[in-house]
Order: sequence, then structure tokens, then C-alpha cells
Amino acid sequence: MLSWILALSCDDRPGIVAAVTGLLRDQGGNITEAQQFNDAHSDRFFMRVAFDIADGPAFRNAFTSLAESFTMDWHIRDADRPTRTLILVSKFDHCLVDLLYRTRMNELDIDIVGIISNHPRDAIRISNLHGAPFHHCPVTKETRADQEAAIRQIIDDSGAELIVLARYMQILSDGLARDLAGRCINIHHSFLPGFKGARPYHQAHRRGVKMIGATAHFVTPDLDEGPIIAQGVEAISHADTPDRLIAKGRSIEQRVLARAVKAYSEDRVFMNGQRTVVFD
Amino acid sequence: MLSWILALSCDDRPGIVAAVTGLLRDQGGNITEAQQFNDAHSDRFFMRVAFDIADGPAFRNAFTSLAESFTMDWHIRDADRPTRTLILVSKFDHCLVDLLYRTRMNELDIDIVGIISNHPRDAIRISNLHGAPFHHCPVTKETRADQEAAIRQIIDDSGAELIVLARYMQILSDGLARDLAGRCINIHHSFLPGFKGARPYHQAHRRGVKMIGATAHFVTPDLDEGPIIAQGVEAISHADTPDRLIAKGRSIEQRVLARAVKAYSEDRVFMNGQRTVVFD
Amino acid sequence: MLSWILALSCDDRPGIVAAVTGLLRDQGGNITEAQQFNDAHSDRFFMRVAFDIADGPAFRNAFTSLAESFTMDWHIRDADRPTRTLILVSKFDHCLVDLLYRTRMNELDIDIVGIISNHPRDAIRISNLHGAPFHHCPVTKETRADQEAAIRQIIDDSGAELIVLARYMQILSDGLARDLAGRCINIHHSFLPGFKGARPYHQAHRRGVKMIGATAHFVTPDLDEGPIIAQGVEAISHADTPDRLIAKGRSIEQRVLARAVKAYSEDRVFMNGQRTVVFD
Amino acid sequence: MLSWILALSCDDRPGIVAAVTGLLRDQGGNITEAQQFNDAHSDRFFMRVAFDIADGPAFRNAFTSLAESFTMDWHIRDADRPTRTLILVSKFDHCLVDLLYRTRMNELDIDIVGIISNHPRDAIRISNLHGAPFHHCPVTKETRADQEAAIRQIIDDSGAELIVLARYMQILSDGLARDLAGRCINIHHSFLPGFKGARPYHQAHRRGVKMIGATAHFVTPDLDEGPIIAQGVEAISHADTPDRLIAKGRSIEQRVLARAVKAYSEDRVFMNGQRTVVFD
Repeated sequence: MLSWILALSCDDRPGIVAAVTGLLRDQGGNITEAQQFNDAHSDRFFMRVAFDIADGPAFRNAFTSLAESFTMDWHIRDADRPTRTLILVSKFDHCLVDLLYRTRMNELDIDIVGIISNHPRDAIRISNLHGAPFHHCPVTKETRADQEAAIRQIIDDSGAELIVLARYMQILSDGLARDLAGRCINIHHSFLPGFKGARPYHQAHRRGVKMIGATAHFVTPDLDEGPIIAQGVEAISHADTPDRLIAKGRSIEQRVLARAVKAYSEDRVFMNGQRTVVFD
Repeated sequence: MLSWILALSCDDRPGIVAAVTGLLRDQGGNITEAQQFNDAHSDRFFMRVAFDIADGPAFRNAFTSLAESFTMDWHIRDADRPTRTLILVSKFDHCLVDLLYRTRMNELDIDIVGIISNHPRDAIRISNLHGAPFHHCPVTKETRADQEAAIRQIIDDSGAELIVLARYMQILSDGLARDLAGRCINIHHSFLPGFKGARPYHQAHRRGVKMIGATAHFVTPDLDEGPIIAQGVEAISHADTPDRLIAKGRSIEQRVLARAVKAYSEDRVFMNGQRTVVFD
Repeated sequence: MLSWILALSCDDRPGIVAAVTGLLRDQGGNITEAQQFNDAHSDRFFMRVAFDIADGPAFRNAFTSLAESFTMDWHIRDADRPTRTLILVSKFDHCLVDLLYRTRMNELDIDIVGIISNHPRDAIRISNLHGAPFHHCPVTKETRADQEAAIRQIIDDSGAELIVLARYMQILSDGLARDLAGRCINIHHSFLPGFKGARPYHQAHRRGVKMIGATAHFVTPDLDEGPIIAQGVEAISHADTPDRLIAKGRSIEQRVLARAVKAYSEDRVFMNGQRTVVFD
Repeated sequence: MLSWILALSCDDRPGIVAAVTGLLRDQGGNITEAQQFNDAHSDRFFMRVAFDIADGPAFRNAFTSLAESFTMDWHIRDADRPTRTLILVSKFDHCLVDLLYRTRMNELDIDIVGIISNHPRDAIRISNLHGAPFHHCPVTKETRADQEAAIRQIIDDSGAELIVLARYMQILSDGLARDLAGRCINIHHSFLPGFKGARPYHQAHRRGVKMIGATAHFVTPDLDEGPIIAQGVEAISHADTPDRLIAKGRSIEQRVLARAVKAYSEDRVFMNGQRTVVFD
């Protein structure tokens, strides 16, 4: 018996769960965890099922026609295969360090198939990339198109399923953002929608807020407006300088991004228009 | 179409979800929310389904034989009927005040069918009980059995489904605790298992902890050892006196107890041996 | 020996603490709690001292010339006299209820000298105002000036030191906001600067954030831009409807506003340009 | 002008702050941050002053006689000199990794003068110790005394001011614990006083708590009973297995230990009997 995960969404109507779980039973599957959500606002239905089954590919075949009859967005995958993940980074390496560490500790079940930076290898101070290939893709205003072509090539060659912007300080072109829709996660260093744009910790200091935060969201062509996956905050005080906010913020960013990557890699995250459904 | 909730637990085996949801579909039901959990430690399966159906009682009848074939603990109830709730209190009325207020604001969907105190009405400073009958059931070491008989009578007469010890400073007899198993919730003013027993805030102050908390749990004959439903904490500092801990603790107790009562009244809480399953 | 509190701010320069505490010692005072903060950005110095002294008024007199030599903003007050507080409210009474309750429990050391609403007494469902005079000050676009004159009169007559907008759904005129600068606290039902303006919980739902919050701030003519005193948040999920956000938000608002009122009433809050200093 | 920090405690009596700040002023010092606390329970006074002064050593000399007259525990140190820190670790390296990273990011102002493990270098998977000498001090029941002698030697040779047990899975002898009193910090992987002793996450799982935590405390001969410096928690659910608790716990442990080390290295932590005073 092997473990598999089925994730699907479709317009709501009676009988979806019965159809899915009935087929699973008929094919000899055993459900180990399942969650459903019906969004009354969009009338959209979301479901995630983890199950054990002897022959996963056979179930996938059997499921195809059922999925068609409900016009589902869906995928089924081997739960034991780590999600192939590509990480983009600039000079701040704290999120990269954290993702590498959690992966090594088996807390994140991802396979880091590559690391891309717009800066050379030695701009990142971390010494051990644990075997992940490093790609230097420098960029200027003039060479953006070429650089993104290089990134696309690396995505294709590595078979990356998930692309993580781990404090990557470049804005993706609309075209690339669109093409990566639903599988590219960014960490923004503010509690969105507050403090969009540049230098959010300085904005937060100037505004005198009493908590700072970070936001992991899907990348879309609308900068800082993509569907939010996870957020976290920490209390601050009048005595915190912008530099101390940046330092406190680093650990919030690490935590929040790791939470989003973990949820995504376990097929717990669904796009729902401008919003997300995240099954705990 | 009316709204109903089905909550069940049974030993795990393949086909439970398919059987339940298949029957629901065949009876014309539409699932609006569903959660399952399979506890690998106890090999026990838990499920909560909220659904719309034209004829709930008919479904209940149909469900009975299915439930027997899986040896389920289960109940089905009209989601629109508030849970009949009896509140026991001593002199501290902050949790009572909070439950009354949240009920009035429709945040808690409960029907407060009575309030019992071991002190007279005027020991509680709140002036408006919003129509809930008040029962004075005084108790001494000698009269405990009689007092508990009176409490049992009030439970029976009021049809209370849930009994809440909202800072009720008496210990229930083993017999009463056992008879109310799984439907009597207590709020303990510490982050259990730390600081069991009397005066937990003074214990916390003496130990010098940096956070205090509160714990809502099912009452069992083992004092302060019942299955935990909800917990909450707040940071404190060296400058907090025991009196300030008590004041801070009051709002933690209110929040945590309200969370537990809300979850219970929505059939989201299941006993699982010494532990609980709580569906968000 | 009686307890007093001295709160001061002035431009930073060497010798302030020595001068203040030297005078205190010479006058027979004993410091029980003291905090200082030097804001490197504004080069402004803030100090709060709680002390016991036999003759407080005599110390106040002695302090006057010292204060002048440092060009201080300052006040000294009897720590045992509750802060005279006026509460403005519209229809939502959860913050009012909470402030009344915490005052009754001696958690807030304030004297509620009046409650003003733009709605009649019976629009507020709470039955017991614990002796606080209720003033109905209705308002329309045309009568705003008259209504604010009535409010000013009540402030004067009651000797209110602190004015709390406890979900008061009217915008103060620039003139009144300016005149109450530094002693009028509002609770905004969002985690500012996100979701300014109307219906913030609906905005939050639409944006799909994963946490909601509340913000207590000083009222200024710039709507939702006043210096922030306290903030709080709570995690939410995709399953929370706007109505559930409003319900969750109520308890955040209560907590955050109570925290701000408590800090203010203990002279722990200082304006610092667009920001605040809040000594824990 | 250089930055210095003065930290002191003594029995409370009038005039301490005036004496200290008066001397500072007379010696040309300028206070940048100061905090005092008078513990009404122990009648003990605590003070931390950060100040700029041209000649720190001269002030230290002048302060000596003042300190004697108040029978103070005190020290004055150059604020720009990082605290010399020795880290002890066994096989779990997540806290070590985190301390190294935060030190490299200048978030912690410590100088890691050595790393001791009871396991060989390759038991720790981190590859880069950033120049900190590694000492392998193996231990068996029989060789404990010799091993601790080796540890003492390393402490002496390295001039370590702070000793951090960063998931060091050996219990110090009473003698060593006593000799390191007030400068040896341990991270315990539970929210003390709950779940003392071995395998706390398994205990937490069995008990069914809804939050787990970690505690940084001073080491004393009483195991898990030392004065607490910092604590942190995170919410968990019925679905969290012991392994997931261990993974979630790792990041709580990192955060809490880093917070304690940071506070200690900035002279913000004072022993106060079985408790601590920690100035934010």
C-alpha cells in the first residue's frame, strides 16, 4: 500500500464527496485524512484526500472520467515524492538558509532542484548548499528578457513544480508571473496590505505600528496583491529601531515562508480567485 | 432544505467516508462542510459533516443501520437549534458575563437554560441574566450529596446538553463527574499540566514563568486531568504581581472557555481517550 | 506616604535623570518604578517615575522650576485617583460593556464620568451602566456643530481627562479632534495601516488575509492616521465569513482598547510626533 | 564618547537612582536607556543603565565606592565588546545553527569562543562553524568528573562569560551547575513547569495539550527548576504526531534560546532568587 494525495476543486453540487470516496473505496483505497470546503461566496468546492492504495496510477486513470464529469481542476500524486522546488534569492539569504535547514531536517518534504540568484555565488554567505545547483542569472533593466528566458530554461530543465522567491529583490515580468500562476510563492516583508512596496520596515517604523509581520503569497502580475497563503506577526515597541525591526522581521519571514512552502508541498493550498483555501 | 450536523467516531476501516457520503447523496443531502481524522495512535476515525437536506429525521433513520454496521458513536442534530447549556459558577463571574454577552451577540449559538451557583444571587455582581433561571445550590462538606442531587434534577428538568463550570470552585464528586463525562467543560486557570490545584496564579508568580495561560477541559474524576479542548496564553513580566496575573488571566479564561463552548456547541469536539479531537 | 506619578518629555540632554531623581531624593521621595527612553530619531527624551512621597503637592511645586529649565512637557498626579473618562459609543456596545466590566473588576483604574451616544439609550442593549450618566447627543449632517458643542459641554462639566471612542461611528470635526489631541483614543477595527475606512472586516475578507486585527490610536484630524497606542491580531482561515470576522474582531477590539485605556490611565503613553512611546 | 552598560541590584532604599545618575552626570556621562525595577516581594532593587561617556574606566573607579555604600551586585562593561560565549551541544544542532546564523547577521552581539560536544565533530551536520574552535569532550558515567574538568579548562582558557546549553543532553554535576550559577543558560523543550524530564514532546502528545512550548532558564543543581528567562509557545492540534511536535518545537526552541541569549548578552537579565528580572 502506498500513500497518495488527491487535490481537487470544482463548482459545488451535491454528490461530489460521495462520488470521490465511493470510487476510492471501490478501488481498494483507504482514506487517512480528508478535508472539504465549500466557499459560499464563490460557490466553489475544494477537497484534499490523503489515502493509501495498492495501485495509485490505476486509480488516477479511473478518476479521470469522474473528474471530467464534474469539470474538476485536480491532480493526484505520490505522497512520498518530494515536491521539486526552485529557490530564487538575491543578497539576503536568511530565508534560503532556513529552507535548506528545514529540508535537511525533513521538516519540509521538498527536493531543492536549484538556486538562482541575480548576484554571484559569493554574495550569499551560506557556504553549504547541500548539493543544490547554483545558477547566477545577473540582470539589468536591458537584459531582463534574456535573464527570464534563462530562468524559464532552468525551470524546464529541473522539472521544478514550485518556485519560491525567498527575498528575491527583482520584480518578475507580467508574462513570467502569469506563466507561473499558482506555483510561485513570494515572501513579502510586511503584514499586507499594509506597507506595500519598498523598505516596509522603515515604513512601519515611521508609521509607529506596534506589530510587524510578513506575508507569503502567490505571485501575480499585480505586485504585492497576489492571493495570500500565510501571515505572521510579532509585537514591537517604540524602542525598536528600523534595524531591529529588520532583524525581528527576518525570523518572521523565515517562519511564514516555511509555513507556506510546507502547506504547498503537501497540496494543502488552493487558489480561489483573489484568495486561497489552505487546509491545515 | 434545512441544515443538519452529523458527528461520528468509530474504529478505522476502509469505506467509512464513502458509505456516509453515499447515503447522504442518495437521500438528497448536500455537504456544506466536512472533516475527517484518523488517529494513527488509537486507530480511531472521527468525522463531522454539515449538510443541507429536505428531511433530516428520515436521514437519521436511514443512517441508524449504517451506524450499527460500523459500530459508530454518533449523533445527528438540527444545526439551527441552539445547544441547551447550563452554567455553574461561584463568586467570580467574569466567565459567566462573557458567555452571556457572546450568546446575546449570537457569537455563541447556545441556549442558556439555567445558572447554578453555590452562592446566593447577590454574590454575583452581574445584574442581568437575560432571562436565564438562577438556582442557588449551597453546599457544605456534609451536604454535598444533596446538593449534587439538586444539580442533577436541574440538569434533567432543563434538558441541558452541555454543563459548563465557569469558575465553579467546587469539585464534583466522582459519580457526578463520571455521569457527565463528555458533556461537562471546566475552565482551569493555568496552562495545564503546569500549576494544578489551588491558586495557580500565585504558583505561577512564585515559579517566575514568563507566560500564563488557561485550559478548558472535559471534567473527569481525575481532577485537572480531563481531556483538553482549548488553551491560551499571554506573556507576562517580572513586574506582574499575582494580582495583575489574576487580572490578565481573567481575559485568557474568558477567551479559552468561549472557544471551547463554541466548538462543543457546534459538534466539533470528540473525546479520544485522554485526548480530544477538535475540528476547526 | 502616598503614591504619585510623574510623566515628562523634553529634548534630550545630559543630566535629566540625575536632576529629576536628585530632587526626588532631596524631597524625601522613594522611586518604586521608573522608565526612560531617548528616541534617537527625534532626539526627544521620555520619562515616567512612580514614587512614594509624604507631600506630593510640595514636590510638584519644587519640580516646576526644574521643569522650566529643561522645557519639559510634564504632569504629576496622585496615583490613587482614577482617571476621569468619558466614553462615546454608537450602536455596537461590546467595547463599552468590556470597559465597564474591567472598571468594575478594578482592572482599569478609571472613573467613567459619562457615556455619550448618538443613538438613544435603548439602542445600547446593556442594561446596567453602573451609575455612569448617559447622554443622548443625536447628530445629522446639519447639526454636527451643535452636537459637538454639546459634547464639549459634557467634557467640561464632567472634568473628563480621557475621551474614548468605543466604536463611535461618527467622525469628529477637525476642530474637535485638534482640541482633544493627546487625550482622545479611538479603536479602529483593522490592523492599521491596512483596511482604513469603512467595513474593514469585509475588506479583509475580500483581500483574503490570514489574520485580522484592531488598532487603538490617538484621534487626530487625519482619519485613521493618528499615533498608534496598541494593536492586536488573531489568525483566521478561508472558512471565516465576514460575519465570523466581525465576531472574532469584537474580542480583539475589546482587548486592544482596554490595553490602550489602561496604559493611558497609568500615564504610560506619550505622543512622539506621529508615533507614541508606551512604557510597559 | 563610548557606550557603556551598568547593571546593578541591591536592597531597595531611597536615593539609589539619584546617587547613580548624579555620579554619571558629574562624570560627564549621558544616559541613553535606563530601566529600574523594585520587586515588592523581595524588596530588591534592579537597575540597568546604558550611557555614553568619554572615560568609562574612570567612571568604573568612581562607581566602586558608591556601589560599596549600597552593597550592590554590579558590573560595568564596554557595550561594544561582544559577550564571550561558549556553546555546548549534543547531536541536535538546530539551536547551534540558529545561534551561529544570528551571530553572523549581527543580530546577536556575541563572540562564540568555542563549541563543545560530547559527540565527535561529524555528529553535528552543520559544516561551517565560522571559525569557532570545536572541542570533543566525550563522557560516560565513569568519566563525568574528567569531562567536566576538561569543560572547566575550556571555559577558563576561552574566557567565556556565558555558557549556553543548546540542546546539550547531559546533566551537569551539582558542583559545575553551582559554579556556573547566573551565567549558564539551558533551553528546555517544554513549557515549564509542564513536562519536566525526558521526551517532553511525547509527554505533551500523550497528555493532549493544545499548545507546546520551550523554556530558556538558568542552570541550577535543581534540574528543570532554574530561574526562567524566556518562554514561547505555538498552537498544535490533534493531528500533530510526536514527530510533528518535535519539528514545530525546534523553531520554538531556536527563538526562545536566541531571545534569552540576546537579553543576557545585553546585560538585561538579573537573578532574583528563584525568579529573574528581564528588562526589555
